[in-house]
Amino acid sequence: MHLLSIDSLDDAAIAQLLERGAAFAADPALGAGRLAGCTVFNCFYENSTRTAMSFAQAAARLGAQAITLSVEHSSVKKGETLADTARTLGAMGPDALVLRHRHDGAAAEVASLVDCPVVNAGDGTNEHPTQALLDALTLTQHFGSLDGRRVAIVGDIRHSRVARSNAKLLERLGVEVRLAGPDRLVPPGCMSFDSALDGADAVMMLRVQRERLDEELGDAPGEYLRLHGLTLERLARARPDSVVLHPGPMNRGVEIADEVADLPGRSLILRQVANGVAMRMAVLEHLVGR
Amino acid sequence: MHLLSIDSLDDAAIAQLLERGAAFAADPALGAGRLAGCTVFNCFYENSTRTAMSFAQAAARLGAQAITLSVEHSSVKKGETLADTARTLGAMGPDALVLRHRHDGAAAEVASLVDCPVVNAGDGTNEHPTQALLDALTLTQHFGSLDGRRVAIVGDIRHSRVARSNAKLLERLGVEVRLAGPDRLVPPGCMSFDSALDGADAVMMLRVQRERLDEELGDAPGEYLRLHGLTLERLARARPDSVVLHPGPMNRGVEIADEVADLPGRSLILRQVANGVAMRMAVLEHLVGR
Amino acid sequence: MHLLSIDSLDDAAIAQLLERGAAFAADPALGAGRLAGCTVFNCFYENSTRTAMSFAQAAARLGAQAITLSVEHSSVKKGETLADTARTLGAMGPDALVLRHRHDGAAAEVASLVDCPVVNAGDGTNEHPTQALLDALTLTQHFGSLDGRRVAIVGDIRHSRVARSNAKLLERLGVEVRLAGPDRLVPPGCMSFDSALDGADAVMMLRVQRERLDEELGDAPGEYLRLHGLTLERLARARPDSVVLHPGPMNRGVEIADEVADLPGRSLILRQVANGVAMRMAVLEHLVGR
Repeated sequence: MHLLSIDSLDDAAIAQLLERGAAFAADPALGAGRLAGCTVFNCFYENSTRTAMSFAQAAARLGAQAITLSVEHSSVKKGETLADTARTLGAMGPDALVLRHRHDGAAAEVASLVDCPVVNAGDGTNEHPTQALLDALTLTQHFGSLDGRRVAIVGDIRHSRVARSNAKLLERLGVEVRLAGPDRLVPPGCMSFDSALDGADAVMMLRVQRERLDEELGDAPGEYLRLHGLTLERLARARPDSVVLHPGPMNRGVEIADEVADLPGRSLILRQVANGVAMRMAVLEHLVGR
Repeated sequence: MHLLSIDSLDDAAIAQLLERGAAFAADPALGAGRLAGCTVFNCFYENSTRTAMSFAQAAARLGAQAITLSVEHSSVKKGETLADTARTLGAMGPDALVLRHRHDGAAAEVASLVDCPVVNAGDGTNEHPTQALLDALTLTQHFGSLDGRRVAIVGDIRHSRVARSNAKLLERLGVEVRLAGPDRLVPPGCMSFDSALDGADAVMMLRVQRERLDEELGDAPGEYLRLHGLTLERLARARPDSVVLHPGPMNRGVEIADEVADLPGRSLILRQVANGVAMRMAVLEHLVGR
Repeated sequence: MHLLSIDSLDDAAIAQLLERGAAFAADPALGAGRLAGCTVFNCFYENSTRTAMSFAQAAARLGAQAITLSVEHSSVKKGETLADTARTLGAMGPDALVLRHRHDGAAAEVASLVDCPVVNAGDGTNEHPTQALLDALTLTQHFGSLDGRRVAIVGDIRHSRVARSNAKLLERLGVEVRLAGPDRLVPPGCMSFDSALDGADAVMMLRVQRERLDEELGDAPGEYLRLHGLTLERLARARPDSVVLHPGPMNRGVEIADEVADLPGRSLILRQVANGVAMRMAVLEHLVGR
């Protein structure tokens, strides 16, 4: 059993993961020893602080050891194919393999070649299912049922695996998902930023890649924030009790204003981080535990 | 006690390691808790995915923690001598120290300066004894006794620590070892590739370094494979039930053809990887366990 | 509770840490399981072999897992502020966070933003309190009470966090601290090297940064050693039973002569390294254990 995409999960599994993630968030000590003696290969072919550390912390809290492979030490530089690397890592007998890779479908390819569960920790512009699960947990903690809620996902929709996984999962949970962003960064048929915010219960801002920023805007200072970023003024279009999410790392003053990022009671950004560990505990337990 | 070279091991130790490695390969759970509370310093001054991860996985399965030092963080960049680094690491009190280093004799130098067991995980063009042990385990699993078997080791013999350690160990086990490779990459007195294959029970292909490839051949695409690589046609000179090994990472289409690398029942390449973890468990237990 | 500076510690805490460090140095097995199930985030934004490995070894000996963040994988490269990184790491719920960072005050900033204990493992030119504690432990093991002892700290005083933390701690312990070094590397009012050595009980040489060497001296080979390094001849000005310390990594033949670095019975440099693990065990236990 793998977690490659939100589509890998049936409704029962989603409900169970959200429940278990909430339990681990409330009491991390619940996980103690559940994966004792297990090893999780934490394979990051793209740099990431938060996701790699989050999986390592989740593994440790379950009593497992994370063994981290970073791209700098990898045989990738020696010209080995991803398939051979996957078979090699799989043959070492880890209890789970977590993979981040710049190619769409990399996790699925690896999963087809190894005997252990594979967790997709982000593959190209395709999916990032644990991010969507932790975001759903965060929203569920705040709102209870998400049925009928309106969530705006805003930014570089076209290239965002976070947006793709979140849109799939939130729709499964009954949310009205609204996608918006700068014209050249969204697929046809998206809403304007202002319409997406109108009466929204939650706004999820995406990180804008600095290289895209330059391409699209010439990056006059403050220009992205003014045109496409979440300011307090713009947030006023959403519900007065609406909440703000961001998968991090944030570009403050670019896609999100400081006052929004730090909005007391309404910015759930650090809650997302804490829930990331809890949700990854739930996912590893679900895939590996017996 | 250290494992610096195949010469470090007497016949009884070799027999015991092969037996214990086979037991761990059959049931990794046998190792649980045997080195509980121990730490293994995993010091890689050359990049390596498979060997570093393999030792970390072996340590974890014995209940030990591997603490990995990679060259990027090392004081090497600050101009510290290997001797001072060794004394420093030794003074921290690890239960074992695993070292890969580009200099011949580096592991022996470190071993002379620290109080804990040292495992040579590859030193320059000198030796790589755990690779030889895992290869012998792989061949023993397949053939039973190796006495009288013929094994061809083919490639850049001159610069290969894998070849050197394997030749020593296999000869100790009664194997007729045949060395072959491109003229400029083998010492005088080696056989031709075709003669080495003739009636061989096993063919161990070595990785060719891309930089050597360019030097020696100008690297016309497909040229190395045609002249010096293991193709199905060439493999037909060996015994019909002969097996193929490669220490990885492979250059597919260079020293080994895809069809050979993936030959069902006869390519033991992934078995080597799995045995690598088992054999390193046996080695760490042998050196550290009480 | 944090360890950000020597000033963070009252006299009772210093006495307790020195006692507990001595106990761990005498018997590392004392720590077994004391922080079982805990995780220590080991965040190094500057390269370091010895300090990062030392904290990881200390955590392992207490039964905790160190999760190491190295700058290469960090969101720093993605332009995240230290404050956001700190909040993010803190939200993941580590039991302690160890930080090395090139900015003065970085550890204090992080400590103000997270809920867990923070250990300053070196911040810019400000402080490195665990180094001072392990040095005090080393001197105490050798001399017993330090009251009235004379300790010369020699080298780049102006930029050295090691000197700053040591001066503070040693003065608290009744030591007459003498600071010396090349004119442009010391604040006004320091002593000459020879006067500082006169009758000293201990000489602590600081590492000279190669880049400073070039700036200050033009770096004629042997020139720094002749003018500012600790040779046997110069050491003869100190007490005949005086001891030598160095925080490492050493530039042999630059700030310290080989014969001094390796002086039997009087060079305590490797003892410092061993005590580093023991003292960090004491610090982590003090901050995290309950």
